[in-house]
Amino acid sequence: MPSYKAPVADTQFVLNDVIRIADYAHLPGFADATPDLIAAILEEGAKFVEQVLQPLNQVGDEVGCTRHADGSVSTPPGFKQAYQQFCAGGWMGLAVPTEFGGQGLPHVIANAFEEYLISSNMAFAMYPGLTLGAMAAIRAVGSQAQQETYLPKMAEGVWTGTMNLTEPHCGTDLGLLRTRAEPQADGSYRITGTKIFISAGEHDMSDNIIHLVLAKMPDSPDSVRGISLFIVPKFLLNADGTPGARNAVSCGSIEEKMGIHGNATCVLNYDGATGYLIGEKEKGMRAMFIMMNAARLGVGVQGLAVSEVACQNAANYARDRLQGRALSGPKNADAKADPIIVHADVRRMLMNARAFNEGARALALWGALQVDLTHLAETEQARTEADDLIGLLTPVIKGYFTDKGYENATNAQQCFGGHGYIREWGMEQFVRDARIAMIYEGTNGIQALDLVGRKLPANGGRALRSYMKIVGDFIAAHKDDAVLGPMVAALGCAQADLNSATGWLMRNAMMKPDNAGAAAVPYLHLMALVMFGHMWGQIALAAQAALTRGADDAAFYQNKLTTARYFFSHMLPESAVHRARVEAGADNLMALAAEAF
Amino acid sequence: MPSYKAPVADTQFVLNDVIRIADYAHLPGFADATPDLIAAILEEGAKFVEQVLQPLNQVGDEVGCTRHADGSVSTPPGFKQAYQQFCAGGWMGLAVPTEFGGQGLPHVIANAFEEYLISSNMAFAMYPGLTLGAMAAIRAVGSQAQQETYLPKMAEGVWTGTMNLTEPHCGTDLGLLRTRAEPQADGSYRITGTKIFISAGEHDMSDNIIHLVLAKMPDSPDSVRGISLFIVPKFLLNADGTPGARNAVSCGSIEEKMGIHGNATCVLNYDGATGYLIGEKEKGMRAMFIMMNAARLGVGVQGLAVSEVACQNAANYARDRLQGRALSGPKNADAKADPIIVHADVRRMLMNARAFNEGARALALWGALQVDLTHLAETEQARTEADDLIGLLTPVIKGYFTDKGYENATNAQQCFGGHGYIREWGMEQFVRDARIAMIYEGTNGIQALDLVGRKLPANGGRALRSYMKIVGDFIAAHKDDAVLGPMVAALGCAQADLNSATGWLMRNAMMKPDNAGAAAVPYLHLMALVMFGHMWGQIALAAQAALTRGADDAAFYQNKLTTARYFFSHMLPESAVHRARVEAGADNLMALAAEAF
Repeated sequence: MPSYKAPVADTQFVLNDVIRIADYAHLPGFADATPDLIAAILEEGAKFVEQVLQPLNQVGDEVGCTRHADGSVSTPPGFKQAYQQFCAGGWMGLAVPTEFGGQGLPHVIANAFEEYLISSNMAFAMYPGLTLGAMAAIRAVGSQAQQETYLPKMAEGVWTGTMNLTEPHCGTDLGLLRTRAEPQADGSYRITGTKIFISAGEHDMSDNIIHLVLAKMPDSPDSVRGISLFIVPKFLLNADGTPGARNAVSCGSIEEKMGIHGNATCVLNYDGATGYLIGEKEKGMRAMFIMMNAARLGVGVQGLAVSEVACQNAANYARDRLQGRALSGPKNADAKADPIIVHADVRRMLMNARAFNEGARALALWGALQVDLTHLAETEQARTEADDLIGLLTPVIKGYFTDKGYENATNAQQCFGGHGYIREWGMEQFVRDARIAMIYEGTNGIQALDLVGRKLPANGGRALRSYMKIVGDFIAAHKDDAVLGPMVAALGCAQADLNSATGWLMRNAMMKPDNAGAAAVPYLHLMALVMFGHMWGQIALAAQAALTRGADDAAFYQNKLTTARYFFSHMLPESAVHRARVEAGADNLMALAAEAF
Repeated sequence: MPSYKAPVADTQFVLNDVIRIADYAHLPGFADATPDLIAAILEEGAKFVEQVLQPLNQVGDEVGCTRHADGSVSTPPGFKQAYQQFCAGGWMGLAVPTEFGGQGLPHVIANAFEEYLISSNMAFAMYPGLTLGAMAAIRAVGSQAQQETYLPKMAEGVWTGTMNLTEPHCGTDLGLLRTRAEPQADGSYRITGTKIFISAGEHDMSDNIIHLVLAKMPDSPDSVRGISLFIVPKFLLNADGTPGARNAVSCGSIEEKMGIHGNATCVLNYDGATGYLIGEKEKGMRAMFIMMNAARLGVGVQGLAVSEVACQNAANYARDRLQGRALSGPKNADAKADPIIVHADVRRMLMNARAFNEGARALALWGALQVDLTHLAETEQARTEADDLIGLLTPVIKGYFTDKGYENATNAQQCFGGHGYIREWGMEQFVRDARIAMIYEGTNGIQALDLVGRKLPANGGRALRSYMKIVGDFIAAHKDDAVLGPMVAALGCAQADLNSATGWLMRNAMMKPDNAGAAAVPYLHLMALVMFGHMWGQIALAAQAALTRGADDAAFYQNKLTTARYFFSHMLPESAVHRARVEAGADNLMALAAEAF
C-alpha cells in the first residue's frame, strides 16, 4: 500500500548547488561525475528501487526469512530475483574502484543512491550494505591476494559479506568475546564460537558469503587487545577461486525481531570452521572500526531514508484524507470536510520531518564527500581536515539521524490516526524497521560517548575547533544578508550553546568522567542542531542564488527558504535545553543506589 | 520473560502523603478508604496482576485473538480463565456504587489499581476498561430502567461493554458518520452500518456485550448535531433480563495491528440490529464525551503503566548485564565487567523514566481525586473547581502521558541493546503496545487542540487562572525553604514560560486560529511540565516531612528528593523550547502549498 518516489531533484540540488560537487572535478573519479551522469544514475536508480524493490517491502515484512531444517535460509518471495537485477544493474559496484570491477565513482554518489535503496526496502538494502562494509575492511587491511580473491566477486554482488562481532554475552564490550581461532599447520585457523545478530548471515541470494569474524587466538590476551579478524567463507574456495566445500559455519536460528523481517538476522555457529587471518594479529579492532565507521554512516542514512519514505506517505494521506475543517474556515467547501493537511498540527509533523530530511540529506552527502576527500584530496592537510570532519560527523549522523528517523516515522504513522496502527497501511512497519537503527552498529548512547570521549579530545580538540571555525566564518560572511542574516543569527545562538557546553565539559569531565557520560547524548543532539543549522544556512544560500539567477521552478527554491525558516524558528531553539542538560551534570543522575531502581 | 512488581509503596505514599486522601474522609465512599483498606486492596490487587495477568502478557501478544468462520472470536490462551478470576475478585466494581452491586469506593482507588492492571497486561486491561467507559455513559445519560438493566451485570463483569464511534471514513470528525438508526413501532431502532477499530468488540469472555453505538436517525441533521447514542446488546434480553436471541451485530474481521494483539479490535457490522436510544435524541455527542473523558484518563494511565513496567525490566537488566567498565573506574572488580547501570547514559534513560513515572502517578491520582470531587465535594464551588481542574488535566494526562510512555518504553528497550529488538525479551512488545495510546480516544494532536481551543478559553479562562493560582501559591509558600526553594524557583521559571505562551496565544490566536493549531502540542507539553513540577514539589515536600518526622525507610524518601532534583535540573528546562515553539507562530508552518509536500 505505501508508495515511494525517490527525491531526485532534491539530491541533485544538494550535490550540484549546496556541496557543489563540480568544485572537485579535478580529483580522480569526480571528473566522470558530471551533472549529466549524476542525473542519469539517480534517475535510473530511482526507477529501479521504485519499480522493483519498493513493491517487495511489505511482503518482506510479512513473510520474512525462513530457516529450513538443513540450516539453509530462504529470503522473502521476490528478493532473490530482485537481487539478481540489482547486481545486473551494477548497483553494487558504484563506488568500487575499477580495478576490482566497480565503476570507480565517488563515494558521495553511491551514498546518494543508498538513501533511495533503503527508503524503498530497508531490509533488502542491508544485504548489499553489509557487503560494502566487509569490502571496506578487506580493502583497508586485506593482503593483495585477499583483495584480488574477494573484492571482484563482492563488487559484482555474486558473493555477499557479513560482520561477526556480537556474541550472546557481549556486544558493546568486545573484549569479552569468546570465539577462538586456533592456528593450523597450513596457515589457516580453526574458528569456534557462536555469533549472534548477524545480519544477512545466511541466505539464498548469493553464491558465497564472506564472513568477517572477530576471534581470539589461544596465545592472545583475553581482552580487547587480543582480538584478531578472520575471513571465513561459507564455501571454501577451490584452487580456481570458485566456491567449493561447505565450511563449518551454519545458521543455528533466525532471530524473531521487531522489524527488518526481510533481512535474515542469524545466530551463526562456527564449529571449527576454516578461517584466514586478515590484517595483523591482534589488530582486529582496528579493522573492525573500518567496517564499523562505514556501517555507521550507512545506518545514519537508514534514519534519513525511513523518515523520507514514511513522511512521503504521511503527506499523501494528509492530502487525501477528508476530516474536519481548517480552523481558518473551509478550504474544500464543496466536500463535507477538508483534507487534514490544512491542520497546523499535521503540518507541524510534516514540516519537522521535511526540515530534518532535507537537512540530513545535505549533511549526509557533505559527510560522504569528506570520506572521498580523506583518500583523494590533494594535500595532506586537506586529507586530515576531511578525516577530522568525518570523525565528528560519523557519531552525529549515526546517532541523530536514527533518533530522528524513528521519531519522524512515528509522527508519520500518527498522521494516519488509527489506520497508522493497522498493518496493511504499512506505516507501522516503518516504525518497527526504523527502531533497529538506534541500536545496531553501536547504540546511540555509544555514538555519543564516541563523540564526547574520543572525537572531541582527539588531537587536542583540533576537529571541533576547525569545524567551529567553518561555522563561525559562515555566520560572519552572511550576517548582514537580508535573507540569511536572521538565520545565521539563530545559528550563532546555537553555536554559543555548543561552545558553552563544550567549555563546561572541558572544565568538568576530566576530574569526573560521569559528567561526560551524562552529557553525551544531549551534547550529540546539540552538535547535530548546529550542523543542521550550518547545512540549512548553505541550503538557503544556494536557494537564494538560484532565485537570483532566475532558475526554473522558483517554487522549489522558495520552499527551501520556507523550510529553512521553519528549521530556524521551530527546531534550532532546542539547542538551549540540550545545553542545560549537559551543564546540569551527573550528580542527580548517579546518586541513587542501583537497587533503588 | 519480562517481570512486573506493582509499585504499592509508591502508590500508598502518593495517596496518603502527597494527595492526602485522609483529608477527604468526610465524603461518601472516602470514609471507608482507610489507609489499611487501601493497603489491603493494593496488595491484593498487586498479587492478582503479578501472578495471574502478567504471565499472560506475552502469550497474548504472540497468539492474539482469533476470529472463527462463524464470526465468533477467541481470546488468547488463559485470558478467559483470568477474566473469571478478575470478576470473582470483585475488581470490576471497585468504584461502582453499591446500589449497582459495586464496592462504592472512590474513583481514585480504582485508578490506582488500574495502573497495575495495565502494567501487567495492557491488552487484557482494555476489556474491563471499555466496560467502565460504557458504564459511565449509561450512568450519566441512561434511564433508571436502563441503569438497572445493564449496570449490575456490567459491574459484576459478566457483561462487558464497547464504544462504537469510528467508521472507515471517519474518526475524529464524527459528523461524517453514516450509521443509520431507523425508528421501529415498538420504540426500538434498527441500526445499520459499519464500525471499525472496536476494542473488545467480540470475544468469548463475557455472557453478553453491550455495544454503545453512535448513529443518525433519518430525520436528524447529517452533521455532528444529528448524532444519537444507542445501546445495542450482542444478545437481546429476554423478559427476565437474561441474554436471549442473537442481535444482528457481527464481527466482520479482526484488525491486524502493530500491538495490543490480546485485545480483539473488531470491524463490527450492524445489519439492522435492534438498538435502544440512550439519552436524548441528537445528544449523542454529549454522552460520547462522558465515555470519552473517562476513557482518556484511562488511556493516559496506559502511558504511565507501560512506562513503569518497561522501565522496571530495563533496570533489572541494567543491574544484571555485565558490559564495559564505569568511566569512573571498575565497580565490580572481581568480574570481567561492570553492570551497565554504572553508566551515566543508562542512568539518564532510567532517571527520565523514573521521574516521569512517579510524577505521573501523583498527577494521575490527583486527577482521579478531582473526578471524585466533581460528584462528592460539598459545595457547588468546590465541585466546579474540581470540574475545571479535571477539564485541564484530561488532555494533558492523555496526551503527555502517552507521548512519554512510548518514549520511555523505547528507552527501556534501548537499555537492552540488540536484545531489546528480539521478541522473546518482551521489550519490543511494550513499545508496540504503548504506541496505540498516542492514537486512540482522540490522537494526541486532538488532545492538544481540546486543551488550547476548548479548555483554555472556557468560562473566560477560569480553569487555567485557578490552576495557576494553586501553583503560584505553592511557589510562594516554599520559596524560602532550604530544600524546596531551588525547586520552586525552577518551577517559577517554567510557570513564567507557560504564562508567556498563554499570553501569546491570547494575543495571536483569536485573529489567526492556525496559531492555536500550530501551538497546541508544544503548549500541552509545556503545561504538562508545569503540572509535573507542581507534583514534584509536593512529592519533595511530603518526602521532606517524612524525613523530618523520622519515618522508617529514610532511603525511600531520600530517593524521592534525588529524583525531584533530577526532574528540576534535567527535565523541567524543556519548558523554554516549548514556549519558543508556541511563540514562533504558524507562518513558516502553513506557507508551503499542499502539493509541495
